[in-house]
Amino acid sequence: MYHILVTLDSNYIPPLKVMLYSLFANNPGKKFAIHLIYAHITNEEIKDLKKYTDFFGQSLNAVYIGEEVFSDALTTMHYTKAMYYRLLAHCFLPSDIEKILYLDPDILAINPLDELYNTDLTGYLFGACAHNTPIVDYINKIRLQSTESEHYFNSGVLLINLKQGRLEIKKEAIFNYVAENEALLILPDQDVLNGLYGNRILALDDSLYNYDVRKSSSYALISGGAKKTDWVVKNTVFLHFCGKQKPWRSKYTNKFGLLYKHYQRLAGL
Amino acid sequence: MYHILVTLDSNYIPPLKVMLYSLFANNPGKKFAIHLIYAHITNEEIKDLKKYTDFFGQSLNAVYIGEEVFSDALTTMHYTKAMYYRLLAHCFLPSDIEKILYLDPDILAINPLDELYNTDLTGYLFGACAHNTPIVDYINKIRLQSTESEHYFNSGVLLINLKQGRLEIKKEAIFNYVAENEALLILPDQDVLNGLYGNRILALDDSLYNYDVRKSSSYALISGGAKKTDWVVKNTVFLHFCGKQKPWRSKYTNKFGLLYKHYQRLAGL
Repeated sequence: MYHILVTLDSNYIPPLKVMLYSLFANNPGKKFAIHLIYAHITNEEIKDLKKYTDFFGQSLNAVYIGEEVFSDALTTMHYTKAMYYRLLAHCFLPSDIEKILYLDPDILAINPLDELYNTDLTGYLFGACAHNTPIVDYINKIRLQSTESEHYFNSGVLLINLKQGRLEIKKEAIFNYVAENEALLILPDQDVLNGLYGNRILALDDSLYNYDVRKSSSYALISGGAKKTDWVVKNTVFLHFCGKQKPWRSKYTNKFGLLYKHYQRLAGL
Repeated sequence: MYHILVTLDSNYIPPLKVMLYSLFANNPGKKFAIHLIYAHITNEEIKDLKKYTDFFGQSLNAVYIGEEVFSDALTTMHYTKAMYYRLLAHCFLPSDIEKILYLDPDILAINPLDELYNTDLTGYLFGACAHNTPIVDYINKIRLQSTESEHYFNSGVLLINLKQGRLEIKKEAIFNYVAENEALLILPDQDVLNGLYGNRILALDDSLYNYDVRKSSSYALISGGAKKTDWVVKNTVFLHFCGKQKPWRSKYTNKFGLLYKHYQRLAGL
């Protein structure tokens, strides 16, 4: 059984369905439990999602987060409650789940995830990928003073060691960090992940597990020509459609867009 | 039950598997009977193909064509027996099949084929698509003297009215036509199809059923911008990877190549 965590609002339900479809289709015969932590999705939408996962023989566990839950946390226009769901997932999920894989909804699975999911996280809180841009890494390191970590990790694909999190990650620490660094945080959850836990993250290969589709030439170049399209098609597990241009828009031009749109059609959208 | 006809030699078995996989995947819950007419495929390869279709719950009917079958037909280096399989399919298939869809192995299905398969062929021998290039149409019309037909049809996707063919299409007529026009035939089976039966073919929409991936800008242009990528993903049933550049080669650059390669991976190749 693979446990998958998603956290989103209504706007992202269609991409979520595409992401889930691609996950099911590329892991034939595997069982998934989809855990959705949410605050602003209607009951109708939850029912519809339940029907969707049922159709593929998979299960949905929808966890509603009430107004009171983060009443003592700093939430503003910029910092919504949702930023805490990923880091505090262990507070909201059944206590017998030891590990879960968080996935952004703008992700497309194109290969099986077994190897990623089975990564040994002993001693780590998370497994994540850095989108290595040396200059961005440098700026973020100064900004967040996380000198111990080499990378600035992307939080879009996050393998979470819930067992370890239950022992180490405390709400208060996160709330305090946010309050103290309010002015510095640009991408709240990602910044907190890196600032507080950067040195407790196992670095995973982004070309395999969090492939930034905007950077395909860079992947090919850095690998000395090895990681071209053919390699990606055979090896990459998750394509991440990062950035403001989204593949479900008709104007989207990136070469991976066609594959995305085909999955959109297959997912019935 | 959808009857599909394929005719090929060993070299094309991997693409055939990709084509079949895409057909099954994009027509969920549908039953297919794959009829393979062949002369040069080993028993091992046939067994392997049978295992492959079995795996997807589909059936394979392999029809071996012995040396004696076309002993009275003109076959040379250029004109092999295989050129006759499509046009004379009714001679080799069970007599209770009234209609069959022939597909080239360099085709990828990306949408359900129901509408195409259910096209009413009453009074026609075939349904086929022209790859409309006015100048090529003109040259071919002169060359093959098929003045009654408006188009030069591509034989890569061919809906065959077997019932009508049993009544009308005689081996001898085809053998004679080939013998008489030997010097003029460039693409043997396609030329015979157009030369002898051009006016008995129901013209189908190539942008839907035989989309030449080399001409994507032309489809968009001719349709006044309507048939861009988004339209193709939602509507086109068969992408045809025409021409010498093939999508299973690593140097292939056409934008549809990535989708093809992903299906290659899904098909286990």
